[in-house]
Amino acid sequence: MRQSELFTKTRREAPSDETAKNAEFLIRGGYIHKEMAGVYSYLPLGLRVIKKIEDIIRWEMNNIGGIEMKTSILQNKEVWEKSSRWDDNVADSWFKTKLKNGGEIGLSWTNEETFTNVLKQYINSYKDLPVYAYDFKEIFRNEARSKSGIMRGREFYWKALYSFSKDEIEHNTFYEKAKQAYQNIFEKVGIGSLTYTTFSSGGTFSKFSHEFQTITEAGEDIIYVDEKKRIAVNKEVYNDEVIESLNLKKEELVEKKAIEVGNIFTLGTKFSEPFDLKYKNEKSENQLVFMGSYGIGLGRLMGAIVEILSDDKGIVWPESVAPFKIHLIEIPSESDEVKKKSLKIYEKLGEDNVLYDDRNIRAGEKFNDADLLGMPLQIIISEKNIASNKLEFKDRKTGEVKMISEDELPNLC
Amino acid sequence: MRQSELFTKTRREAPSDETAKNAEFLIRGGYIHKEMAGVYSYLPLGLRVIKKIEDIIRWEMNNIGGIEMKTSILQNKEVWEKSSRWDDNVADSWFKTKLKNGGEIGLSWTNEETFTNVLKQYINSYKDLPVYAYDFKEIFRNEARSKSGIMRGREFYWKALYSFSKDEIEHNTFYEKAKQAYQNIFEKVGIGSLTYTTFSSGGTFSKFSHEFQTITEAGEDIIYVDEKKRIAVNKEVYNDEVIESLNLKKEELVEKKAIEVGNIFTLGTKFSEPFDLKYKNEKSENQLVFMGSYGIGLGRLMGAIVEILSDDKGIVWPESVAPFKIHLIEIPSESDEVKKKSLKIYEKLGEDNVLYDDRNIRAGEKFNDADLLGMPLQIIISEKNIASNKLEFKDRKTGEVKMISEDELPNLC
Repeated sequence: MRQSELFTKTRREAPSDETAKNAEFLIRGGYIHKEMAGVYSYLPLGLRVIKKIEDIIRWEMNNIGGIEMKTSILQNKEVWEKSSRWDDNVADSWFKTKLKNGGEIGLSWTNEETFTNVLKQYINSYKDLPVYAYDFKEIFRNEARSKSGIMRGREFYWKALYSFSKDEIEHNTFYEKAKQAYQNIFEKVGIGSLTYTTFSSGGTFSKFSHEFQTITEAGEDIIYVDEKKRIAVNKEVYNDEVIESLNLKKEELVEKKAIEVGNIFTLGTKFSEPFDLKYKNEKSENQLVFMGSYGIGLGRLMGAIVEILSDDKGIVWPESVAPFKIHLIEIPSESDEVKKKSLKIYEKLGEDNVLYDDRNIRAGEKFNDADLLGMPLQIIISEKNIASNKLEFKDRKTGEVKMISEDELPNLC
Repeated sequence: MRQSELFTKTRREAPSDETAKNAEFLIRGGYIHKEMAGVYSYLPLGLRVIKKIEDIIRWEMNNIGGIEMKTSILQNKEVWEKSSRWDDNVADSWFKTKLKNGGEIGLSWTNEETFTNVLKQYINSYKDLPVYAYDFKEIFRNEARSKSGIMRGREFYWKALYSFSKDEIEHNTFYEKAKQAYQNIFEKVGIGSLTYTTFSSGGTFSKFSHEFQTITEAGEDIIYVDEKKRIAVNKEVYNDEVIESLNLKKEELVEKKAIEVGNIFTLGTKFSEPFDLKYKNEKSENQLVFMGSYGIGLGRLMGAIVEILSDDKGIVWPESVAPFKIHLIEIPSESDEVKKKSLKIYEKLGEDNVLYDDRNIRAGEKFNDADLLGMPLQIIISEKNIASNKLEFKDRKTGEVKMISEDELPNLC
């Protein structure tokens, strides 16, 4: 894409009420627009990042047998009353609103009831199971405060998968697959080495749930990390008994601040019971469906990537989620050659891979913008480089500069 | 995709409160789930249709210079007060809700204010214009009644593009391009021949707006059609003066019921004025930006396609938006040959192109399901067909059956 066609511009300052680094860089770069505290719009560059994250998650969900649907945002009171979670005293995240005829409805703040209610229509026999259904949708939580940028929003874009299994054994097999799929996701988006599968509080049906916690000073959670075993324990369940039961040693655990970037949870029959979601087994006996939930916030993940991979100049995107792999920087020149060469490279690499800075502004401004926006590779086209018959490559992360001949280009994209 | 892996099933009956044909077929086919009146979830097959429609629209919007973003659903009262449309007496479609701290917020029912407010940050000079920005998002309208299935929802998935031009001349050039793009969309989704560019009421800045009205008995609008000229006039502006000004003749206009599947509108400075959205022209004079809006409801379009292209057996999807191009029907058999041949064809055509009915149920049930679900082409694999060394092809629309040799398959997908 040509940068001259992008309506957004970089800014020197973020709004003064914005204290989170992720929001600061993303607003300054024109990735997001702050609508109000905890509510952001995704501008063209930001949407490109979200879509790349979405594609990575979708691939991993489909790979473990997931099937995608799209549930509504408006929620039916009657459905949520079945699980008692309509009540504001039980679930305090609701945004509620009223129909013209006076009926009350809610905005989805999670999806268990919605999915269980849909699947109730279709699950009758053991032959109908298992089902692994997921969706991507906006989720709304009426947070009292919201100050972590896109890492904790009142509105956020979320993937939720629910597993519907015949029994705990079938559930556990899938649960382990999902755990691996989650690890793959964090690996692919570039924060795998800082992300720990973390034991957290479970529920009636399992001692623990699992969070995926990424180490960052901007995190709101405290975890205890065993770096060798690549696992951690959330402070909320951190005690001698738990440490022992996990075969960990207190002296090997290090306290860290972290942000939860995903979680998976064994629900058991917590929702199938109130919804009477049963199937007939091979002996024609009625059995409750055994459920699990698997959530991941895409905006939060994007925010965490920015928090962790940025430096003092701006964002440093990993290639997998960068809006463009390459920032092609044309240094304004009297001669036509620079523009001609830039255009040639742009066309060769393809408009979907390259943000082409064709603007007629100072070189210094272009370099600052490129560092703030954070494409992993910068290619600089100047009179000098053309004279030497080489292209100048700069690695955004290391700052390393290499002079490369044009023939090496086709391997890039 | 294997039908055995699809958790949805067909149903004989739609909910008794559902009177619209589109909702009846889509619910019976397991395309959508009714959450409440006017609110539907898209099940896996339904989501596939929506995504195909989305891809067609996105291609056309990008083709005329559109740039995609994603604005929030939660809306800021202060922003909407600028245009006076926060007031329920001015805009009666709002769903509103409250923050924990008591502040009032709304759910987006349209996007003019949201886009104008975002662009206000980025437009300063004539060099920043034009901008053609769009998004796909859920839109919420607090309709008193909702009885047209997915053609008029309280929650619906919508594309909106807003054009920001330097002046009326630049605007008009784009407006004509957008009109053509809209015609292309309706052509591509298979309802082009029944869809008329329709003159409707304009506003301060233009005598008319344009609706795209598709002829159907299920429509809520009355239009007067000139079939030769391929244009129509909405009843709301149908009078002698208008007919004459459009060079039409009353005796050549035919009254029809129709559904509005899209509309485009010249906004002029209606929103740039209250938002003080100005740019400096080449003489450094401040000028108001000249705007236009271009909307299309994806659920409504999907509903209209079903209303128009279905028959008494079920839906008849055009290939462009069908969840799968082909329904591969394996007729259960004692011999292994049928399954082997079916699998071979399935793999050859690809899981993304084929819904493979591998279920162990009666042939009659399979045929009924295939006709209800409406993939454009059915391929039937039975013992008899294998014996004759031919594949049986059935065109869902015409019912025509052809025996074709396997060699002709590769041309299909």
